[in-house]
Amino acid sequence: MFIKNCWYVAAWSSEVVAGKPFARTLLDVPVALWRDANGKVIALRDRCSHRGAPLSTGRLEGDSIRCLYHGLRFDVQGRCIEIPAQERIPPGLDVPSYPVIEQHKWIWIWMGDPAKADPAKLPDNHYLDDPAWRSMEGYVHYDTNYLLIADNLLDLAHVSYVHATTLGGTEAIAKVNPKIRLSDDGVHVERWVRNTVPAPFVQKVRPYDGPVDRWMNYDFLVPGIFLMDSGNAPTGTGAPEGHRVDATEFRSTQALTPESEDATHYFFSQPHNFLIDQPEITRTIHENVVKAFLEDHQMIHDQARNLRRSSNQDFKMGSIRADEALGKYRWLVQKRLDEEAKVKVQAESY
Amino acid sequence: MFIKNCWYVAAWSSEVVAGKPFARTLLDVPVALWRDANGKVIALRDRCSHRGAPLSTGRLEGDSIRCLYHGLRFDVQGRCIEIPAQERIPPGLDVPSYPVIEQHKWIWIWMGDPAKADPAKLPDNHYLDDPAWRSMEGYVHYDTNYLLIADNLLDLAHVSYVHATTLGGTEAIAKVNPKIRLSDDGVHVERWVRNTVPAPFVQKVRPYDGPVDRWMNYDFLVPGIFLMDSGNAPTGTGAPEGHRVDATEFRSTQALTPESEDATHYFFSQPHNFLIDQPEITRTIHENVVKAFLEDHQMIHDQARNLRRSSNQDFKMGSIRADEALGKYRWLVQKRLDEEAKVKVQAESY
Amino acid sequence: MFIKNCWYVAAWSSEVVAGKPFARTLLDVPVALWRDANGKVIALRDRCSHRGAPLSTGRLEGDSIRCLYHGLRFDVQGRCIEIPAQERIPPGLDVPSYPVIEQHKWIWIWMGDPAKADPAKLPDNHYLDDPAWRSMEGYVHYDTNYLLIADNLLDLAHVSYVHATTLGGTEAIAKVNPKIRLSDDGVHVERWVRNTVPAPFVQKVRPYDGPVDRWMNYDFLVPGIFLMDSGNAPTGTGAPEGHRVDATEFRSTQALTPESEDATHYFFSQPHNFLIDQPEITRTIHENVVKAFLEDHQMIHDQARNLRRSSNQDFKMGSIRADEALGKYRWLVQKRLDEEAKVKVQAESY
Repeated sequence: MFIKNCWYVAAWSSEVVAGKPFARTLLDVPVALWRDANGKVIALRDRCSHRGAPLSTGRLEGDSIRCLYHGLRFDVQGRCIEIPAQERIPPGLDVPSYPVIEQHKWIWIWMGDPAKADPAKLPDNHYLDDPAWRSMEGYVHYDTNYLLIADNLLDLAHVSYVHATTLGGTEAIAKVNPKIRLSDDGVHVERWVRNTVPAPFVQKVRPYDGPVDRWMNYDFLVPGIFLMDSGNAPTGTGAPEGHRVDATEFRSTQALTPESEDATHYFFSQPHNFLIDQPEITRTIHENVVKAFLEDHQMIHDQARNLRRSSNQDFKMGSIRADEALGKYRWLVQKRLDEEAKVKVQAESY
Repeated sequence: MFIKNCWYVAAWSSEVVAGKPFARTLLDVPVALWRDANGKVIALRDRCSHRGAPLSTGRLEGDSIRCLYHGLRFDVQGRCIEIPAQERIPPGLDVPSYPVIEQHKWIWIWMGDPAKADPAKLPDNHYLDDPAWRSMEGYVHYDTNYLLIADNLLDLAHVSYVHATTLGGTEAIAKVNPKIRLSDDGVHVERWVRNTVPAPFVQKVRPYDGPVDRWMNYDFLVPGIFLMDSGNAPTGTGAPEGHRVDATEFRSTQALTPESEDATHYFFSQPHNFLIDQPEITRTIHENVVKAFLEDHQMIHDQARNLRRSSNQDFKMGSIRADEALGKYRWLVQKRLDEEAKVKVQAESY
Repeated sequence: MFIKNCWYVAAWSSEVVAGKPFARTLLDVPVALWRDANGKVIALRDRCSHRGAPLSTGRLEGDSIRCLYHGLRFDVQGRCIEIPAQERIPPGLDVPSYPVIEQHKWIWIWMGDPAKADPAKLPDNHYLDDPAWRSMEGYVHYDTNYLLIADNLLDLAHVSYVHATTLGGTEAIAKVNPKIRLSDDGVHVERWVRNTVPAPFVQKVRPYDGPVDRWMNYDFLVPGIFLMDSGNAPTGTGAPEGHRVDATEFRSTQALTPESEDATHYFFSQPHNFLIDQPEITRTIHENVVKAFLEDHQMIHDQARNLRRSSNQDFKMGSIRADEALGKYRWLVQKRLDEEAKVKVQAESY
């Protein structure tokens, strides 16, 4: 069960190059992506209407794509426009197309009702190409449902344990309770850890001599967009009161897109606004974040494998105070699923 | 669901060597094949009646086979003829045997009612060892249902696209409509492409300077025998009228045998009758056909994987004019399945 | 379906080292094992009560274990004793613990009702560390149900065929019928083969010049403990009458523990009481037994794969005289399963 009427990240812009179809499965649907002559990204269901062969192994001809099994050709709207040895094109041979918007290095796709694909609902991922910030492009593939990854991002207490030597550095992170509130389209979380050690990866690129205040404040937008303002600043310079002096700031920008019920695409980046003229700093930050995200990957993979065991099918997750944000989030997800199911039932009853 | 009462190819003769059992799964049934003292091929169900161990890992003793788990021994009819430490052999320990005929390098097997195993129903595969023709032995394993491979062979329009650089060479093949008619036991298809380029693989072994007429005329016998008369001849020499002058002719001989619902054995050969004293010509032809059949393998594998996705379970293949032969064929297959189901119900009702 | 109220071997003592949790799945339940400060083995269900992460990838802190996902900590009884950033520990967060006894190099675990975990019911595996005997530690993993392996051990006729060149050496073993009787908790089998050749592996370590009498007498305790007195002695020296002169004796000690319905842990050892001051003799014996058990592994793997085929689902194993012991054993297993099901129903009906 996936929320359909929302913008999902389909790919990094750099993944879809001119002249070559790109295949990716999104929400269990195979999708073929390519660029037309103007560079605009086209997205069709990656399944020829004739015998079900993938279009993505086909051939681009101008803006159209030809299936290389029996030669049917489709335009950018998915209309069948040629069948070899046949003049009339019968109805029913069109292929679904999907609204796409390319914005700030991400290709966003709308897998639900195209009439509802409102560009105004696009999340703000501008830090990915803001000239005052620097970052690199990250991608990890999960063989687990996206909800387990969302859970992970909704309780950063895990940073103390899973990321002890990379992003964390202290158990103090887990020992404070964040402030949590519902926002219009998700959950807003603020976590402050005062008078503590800096994050290990920050010490590698811009070390502090003394104690710092750390913050991790983020919006988690349903179903899977994570936008965080995080950083470190010397204790006593007033960061908690809004004065960011001598701070190392980040704007982590992440997106989860379900590949299937059992797999997830994870797009991420860690923009920073200090030392932006030193590419090796950007690279070191990125490499440390990748290392940390592979720590998550291992933990979530182990957790998912454990939950899949037949003897664990009746397991109910235990509830603790730190689950507040993920509890709110799962409630929001269910509400959206229920709304879409209701609309579907109404549509079918006319 | 498989048609049972027909001859299937179980193996190339060369695969079943003297003194050693050979194991292959056919129609989802494990079969052990071996040669008796006279070289005649024996086929038993590859499952000891005692604990279910495979007989094919057992030991041949004269014409009989001994299971090497607990030592039961079976004769060529599958009768249990020895149990260690036990004088009387109780009923119910026999193993099913299957009628087998070896003909023209292929070992044919009948997996249905043995009483119906009529040698007169054997397809004609004599080109495989006809002294006026030369060919090599081909085999490819598919992890897809055999029907998708049959579909491929029933619409040679795909030769233009899938085999552009091997068997095809021109989109003209896809742009003509073949003549199609039902035959007694399958579909007969005739495709003529006039005044066109020769097939790329033919140019490698016996090049033409000018345009040729090409033909691909075949019988596809239910459930999976493909027998084709194909070739090239210079345009204007009268090939369409039946005069084969300066022609390069082939008698492609192919057989599909289901391994299971999700896998297929594909036996094939490409006999030719020109330059038959030059083994390197025969080898080059074979290598090009293998290359082309791996192109099919890739396409059909991709198609099958696409059709297996859960989101594609409700997909109905779209119908175009080129589907005529495969439509007729699938109708014939269903008719045979229905007949066999009816006979089974009648047999059970007595 | 597993018998729950009995002692199973969870591991060799050497597998659970100080300071590091050890993970193993038993009866389809993931279990984390570790040693407390006194070296006593602790066993908890390997699933954090919070989000289901494995505890075995956690951190030992004194005798307790901390889950390294969100930091919950559990004591040796599985009680949750710490939650970061939360003072009160709510009910329902404990993790099941299992009774464990370490005895003669094996760690025994009781996966059923802890109140019934009677140490007096422990099988006698003392030959594993008896100073008069020598052996090495063996383990093989099976991807089959444990019953197929039990069947193998309950009919040693297979030694003639499966182990012709290792443990057998003659078909005479299969040609005698053993004496079989029910014991309190299993089946007792006695097989004597007189005036025959010694076992091939015995000839490698302590060869006989002439014929020997051989015996293989064992208890197979439900559900999977195999304790055998076996050996060779020169024919005519009175072994069948109880005089063991110039004998090579073994006390094979084996245990089957289901990992899941489709996989089994197989622990084994082959203690011998001759030439015990020559480690290379012990090693040669062990290596030959391992080789033989891999012969079993191959046969049982082939058998299981054959039985799993969809076309073999309706197969009923044929019955022969040699099945007597395994018939009695399977009857005992079913009786125990029925008893446990009845107790469960009674417990639920109050």
